[in-house]
This record gives sequence, structure tokens and C-alpha cells, in this order.
Amino acid sequence: MEPAIMGITGVPGFEALGKHIGIKRKRKDFAVISSTKPCTAAMTVTTNKARAAPLTVNLDHIKDGKAQAVIINSGVANACTGSKGLEDAYHTAALGASALGINAKDVLVLSTGRIGDFLPMEKISSGISTIKGELSSSKQAGTDAAEAIMTTDTKMKQAAVRVGKATIAGMAKGAGMIHPNMATMLAIIATDAKVPTGALQRCLTTAVESSFNMISVDNDTSTNDSVIVLANGLAGPVDISEFQEGLSYVCLELAKMIAADGEGATKLIETTVTGAASVDDARKAAKAVISSPLVKSAAFGNDPNWGRIVAAAGYSGCKMRPEKVSVTIQGTTVVRDGMSARFNPNHVSELMKSPKLIITVDLGIGKGTATAYGCDLTYEYVKINADYHT
Amino acid sequence: MEPAIMGITGVPGFEALGKHIGIKRKRKDFAVISSTKPCTAAMTVTTNKARAAPLTVNLDHIKDGKAQAVIINSGVANACTGSKGLEDAYHTAALGASALGINAKDVLVLSTGRIGDFLPMEKISSGISTIKGELSSSKQAGTDAAEAIMTTDTKMKQAAVRVGKATIAGMAKGAGMIHPNMATMLAIIATDAKVPTGALQRCLTTAVESSFNMISVDNDTSTNDSVIVLANGLAGPVDISEFQEGLSYVCLELAKMIAADGEGATKLIETTVTGAASVDDARKAAKAVISSPLVKSAAFGNDPNWGRIVAAAGYSGCKMRPEKVSVTIQGTTVVRDGMSARFNPNHVSELMKSPKLIITVDLGIGKGTATAYGCDLTYEYVKINADYHT
Repeated sequence: MEPAIMGITGVPGFEALGKHIGIKRKRKDFAVISSTKPCTAAMTVTTNKARAAPLTVNLDHIKDGKAQAVIINSGVANACTGSKGLEDAYHTAALGASALGINAKDVLVLSTGRIGDFLPMEKISSGISTIKGELSSSKQAGTDAAEAIMTTDTKMKQAAVRVGKATIAGMAKGAGMIHPNMATMLAIIATDAKVPTGALQRCLTTAVESSFNMISVDNDTSTNDSVIVLANGLAGPVDISEFQEGLSYVCLELAKMIAADGEGATKLIETTVTGAASVDDARKAAKAVISSPLVKSAAFGNDPNWGRIVAAAGYSGCKMRPEKVSVTIQGTTVVRDGMSARFNPNHVSELMKSPKLIITVDLGIGKGTATAYGCDLTYEYVKINADYHT
Repeated sequence: MEPAIMGITGVPGFEALGKHIGIKRKRKDFAVISSTKPCTAAMTVTTNKARAAPLTVNLDHIKDGKAQAVIINSGVANACTGSKGLEDAYHTAALGASALGINAKDVLVLSTGRIGDFLPMEKISSGISTIKGELSSSKQAGTDAAEAIMTTDTKMKQAAVRVGKATIAGMAKGAGMIHPNMATMLAIIATDAKVPTGALQRCLTTAVESSFNMISVDNDTSTNDSVIVLANGLAGPVDISEFQEGLSYVCLELAKMIAADGEGATKLIETTVTGAASVDDARKAAKAVISSPLVKSAAFGNDPNWGRIVAAAGYSGCKMRPEKVSVTIQGTTVVRDGMSARFNPNHVSELMKSPKLIITVDLGIGKGTATAYGCDLTYEYVKINADYHT
């Protein structure tokens, strides 16, 4: 496995486009990812009961384990839109299929943005009509697509890796309403590896568990979370454990980019829990720490307030014996045997003034390990979300 | 049942004091509540695994269902303090017992404040030595005690009710690290009703379930949450269902005061969920709505962003069929059949400019109902918690 720098069009056989079709005022709001060849496909979606309409369409279309194109709009989430919303989502897929000359069942649709509004179908329809001629395998086309799916994101999110003869490249978006549960915000991953559907789904589920499912910006699980992987097979078969390693890498890189670009965030918080009774316990504890508003506020203020870290692990639901707990912040031990270690708070506070804050928690009772990724809670987060609507 | 305005010393046979003993720089930091007669006692405590030392002492001391005095300090939580912390808590109870001339087993101890620091035992010891002569049944003494347990609270929290010949009065504190789970921040409730221990514990558990366990300020479950009720029996027996009603009232009033006084809060958010498949489902959904950082930010910005309300219910774990959901904000229907209802957003935004924001969610599939209480997320919350330490 070798990390690579490229967009989704860096994968042979994949084309893309990103453009403005008038859903947002000025910024790009519409993207297409398309493979020249049919693909095996896998997907994970949100557990939110108020699942958005496009996800219902995708669950239907991906049943045969195949797909060839993904059509994405930003600005409107097409969630909480009832039967009309579902009709609009199916119609979008049909329009895309007709424009691309493929079967509607091979088109997946994604929406992200404001909940409750209907898709502006005239704009969508007009935007779709010309895509066949606009799709391109150029680097710019991949960048345009990654840009078009952004909402409150401040940075594009792309990651890629080479696995044997094959390439895996992905793009993602997400900055708020991020607390993925069995799935995440939008991420689309393309590969030219030849991977059968069953294996592809297993690899994706494994990769998502320790990447997108281990990040949180604000504890709010979205209605639209989706990760889609398309494999067009052009590079032929690859070693499946190498493929897993590569896919996990791409998912983790994208997930970390989402956490670091959390709404209003000034830094990424990376928390590794070791010594847990199980991996599941380690995950619970790590997620509780990076999700705690008190830990997140302390991170913003560069305050080595370890009591909040131990308290978060304590309510996470993991097995814990306080007297066994050790904590480090930026490499400095601040808690030993569940009690304050001797450390210089001003020194640790200085170390915390970094775009990456690393916290480790050793529960000292088992072998379970996990890492979770979050961001600090800032004035800007409140500002962005108090001002969103009006 | 008749609501009453009084502090904890309004209950016959109860004395109190609140004073400064030097744990904090200037503000009162030490309180005692004491009954002239032995009491039956009941308690609920935090589920946080990093439970503070005083709670371990109380679980030991309350085993016989009896207690007579509660000694409380603010400023230091005596949590994550190992065996020394436990020793200090036992020692505090022993010192109190000796000063009051009662059995150490009849003294409960509570601490609230910063996690990780040891109790300043010299100050505690010196402060305790004179309490016998300082205890008073005056109204001022009750007020002093309610004031002395405050940390980041901006308001004292007292509530009382008359039940037949008896009185129930309580005081509480809490503003941050508030997401009680089977218990809550500090609350001490006194009554002169004669209630056997078993019934007292059952009444308390019932009352806590729909009061302290239904509030959240920041999703962070504290290490020190405790609710204690002392019944000295001076008024004789009372109808137990009337007592339950009165105790539930006092708990709910105190819980609402904690939610409204959440760190940095400008308003109380009250969310009632109806039509849930069960009461448990209604509780999950109501708590998810008032806990959502996105809903809380929208409340601060007076933004009728109902999508965030539906999304929070959707990920709460309750049974939900989106097409059955209705939502009102300040009495205006904003969602009908899971979709946007016709409403004037500017008008609803105006209505939201109130110290109390009322949201209702009708899930439309059953008869379960519950109400949860939270507060908005503001710049001030971030400021308070980014600045706490340094």
C-alpha cells in the first residue's frame, strides 16, 4: 500500500464533473462521478430513522451489488420530504441514467444540505441534461466534483492510495451534524480493483467501523450519511487484505479531514484508548472523550483539564476501574493510577497550542484499543449554527 | 399538594448553615444541613464509573436507610483522588459527626467543583469544628446553604411544597457537566413527613426519573451527581401518593432551575414528545432533542430550524416513522406528516425570543409521553469552559 495524491479521476475508468446549477447562490452545487465500465458497489448508510429520500433509492438500486454512476447535489438534503421527495430522488436517478445512456438501477443519488426543502427539479433536470458531454477524466474534473459537494466545509476532502496494480481514491464532505453511526456523511470512493460485491461490502464495513464511525463534530447523527464505493475492475484482481488495508487508509484519511474541518474547529482532537476490556469498550471511551463538549471547550482553551477526560470515559459505558486509569496529553502524563500526576499545567497548555491535540487514555484492564477523532468547540461553531437559517 | 416558597430550613426540625472556609477565594464554599431528629434517608447517585469519593462513603452510610446530616463543600469535587480521597471523605463525615454529637454513619458528605484535587482537610476540619453553634433554623441559614453549594451556577435553586400536614423543601446546584443518568448534580431535599426508607427510596427514584434524569446542559454526566432526601417524621405519616406528587414537584422544579441556569444559557428549552411507542421511547426522543448541539445553537439564534429537531428524534433510538411526525415550536405547527408545514419563519423566530422555548414532537404512533429540559448553546458556554482552568 502506498499513499497517493490524486482526486477520484485519478482512478482509471472514472470520470467526474462539478458545476453550479443554481441550487446555491454562487458556489458549485452539483457533481457526477461515473465509471466507463459497470462496477461492483457497496454502501453504508445512516441509522437515523429520518433517513433522507436518496438513501432509500440507493438501498433499492444497490440490491444487485452493482452501480455505475453517482449523482450528487449540495444545498438541499431532500430529507423529511415525504413521498414527493422520494419521487424526486427516483426521478433524478432516471434523468441521470437517460443522460448517460445506462440503466436507472445503476445510478445512485446523494443529497446534502438543508433538511425539509424539496429538490428544485427544474434546475436538477436542466443540470443533468448536459452531463454526458461534461464528464471528464481530467484532474480538474475530480477537483470540481470534490468542491461541488461541500456545504459548510472549508476544505476539500480527497484521499488516495495505490494497492498493487490498482488505485483507490475517495472524496468526502462533512463539517456539521457529524456523529456517524454505522455510516457517515457523504463519501464516494472509486477503485479500479476487481472486487466482488460481497467482499467489497465486507471491506467497506470494516473500514468504516474504524474511520467514519470514529469521528464526531457535534454528536448529531445526520439523516443523509452515506459512504459509497465503486469498483470498476479495470486493474484486475488484487490481494484482498491489501485492498482492505488501502480502503481503510482512504476512509481514515477522509474521516480525519472531516473531523479537522468540523464547523468552527481550530484543531483536530485524536484520542487513543488502550487497555480496554474489549475493542468495543475502547471505541465507546474514545468516542465519549472526543464528543464531550467540556473536553472540546477545554481543547479550544488549551486547558489540560484531565478531569473532564476521565469523567467522559467514566460515563461512556465502558468497563473502567478509576484507579487503573492513566492519561497523557500531547505526550505528557497527566493522570497516573486514576489521580493527578505531577506535571506543569502551563507547559502542557503550551503544547496544546497545536492544530493536532493528541490524548491517550490507558484503562489498564485489558487489551482493547481504538482511536477516535473530533475537534474543539469554539465560538465559531455556535455562530455558524445559530446563523444557519436566517 | 400546594407549592410553597421557602428554603430547606422551612421544614420543621431542619437546621442549616452556609459559610466561607477558604476553599474558594471569596464565595461561600461550605454548607451543612442537619435534622434535630434522626431521619429515614434515600439517595440516587451518578452512573459515572469514575464516581467521586464522597458518593462511596454515602452508599456505605445510607445502607441502614438512615441519616441525620449532610456536609457539603464546593470548589473541590474530591473525584479521581484515589484512596486518599476516600479517606478524606470518611474523615469529613467523622469530623461532622463528632461536632454534631451524632454517629458518623448518620452523616452524608457531598463535594462539587474541580475534579482531581484533594480536599483541603485543614480548612475542612477547622470549618467543621464550629458548626454546632452555627446551625440555625432561620430562613437566612437555608439561603446561605443553598448559596454555598453553587459553583458556576448564577442562581440559587430552591423549591418547596406542602403535602397535607407535612412540608418538602429542597435545594440543588448544577450548571455544567449536566446530563444526569439515574441521578444528577447535588440536590438535597428535606421533609418532615414520616416515610419509611423503602417507600422513600421508591418515591425518590420515581421523582428523579422524570425530573433530574430528563435534563441536560452539555451531555456530560458528572462524577458527583447525587440526590439525597431526608425525612425526619416530625409531621407524622402522610398519604404516600400525595407525598410522591409533592416530591416529584420539588424535584422537577429544581431540575428545571438547573436546566435554565445551564452554563452560558439564555433560555430554557422544554421539549415534550407525545405519540411515542412507549414512555421510554418518548424520553429518548425528548432528551435527544434538548441535547442536540445543533438544536441548542438554533435556539440561541432564534432559528426555527425544525430539520434538526426531526433529525435528533431520528437518531435517538426511538421507534419513528418520519411520515407520522408533527412538530410545533412555541405553539406554531412547523412540521406535519414529517414534512414542512406552511408557517412564517420570521414570525416563529420572533416567538422564539423568549426565556422559555417550547417544542413539541408528536411521533404519531403510540401513547408514550415525556418532557425533557435543556438550554441553548451560546458563546458564553464555550467561554466559561475554555477558561475554567487557567
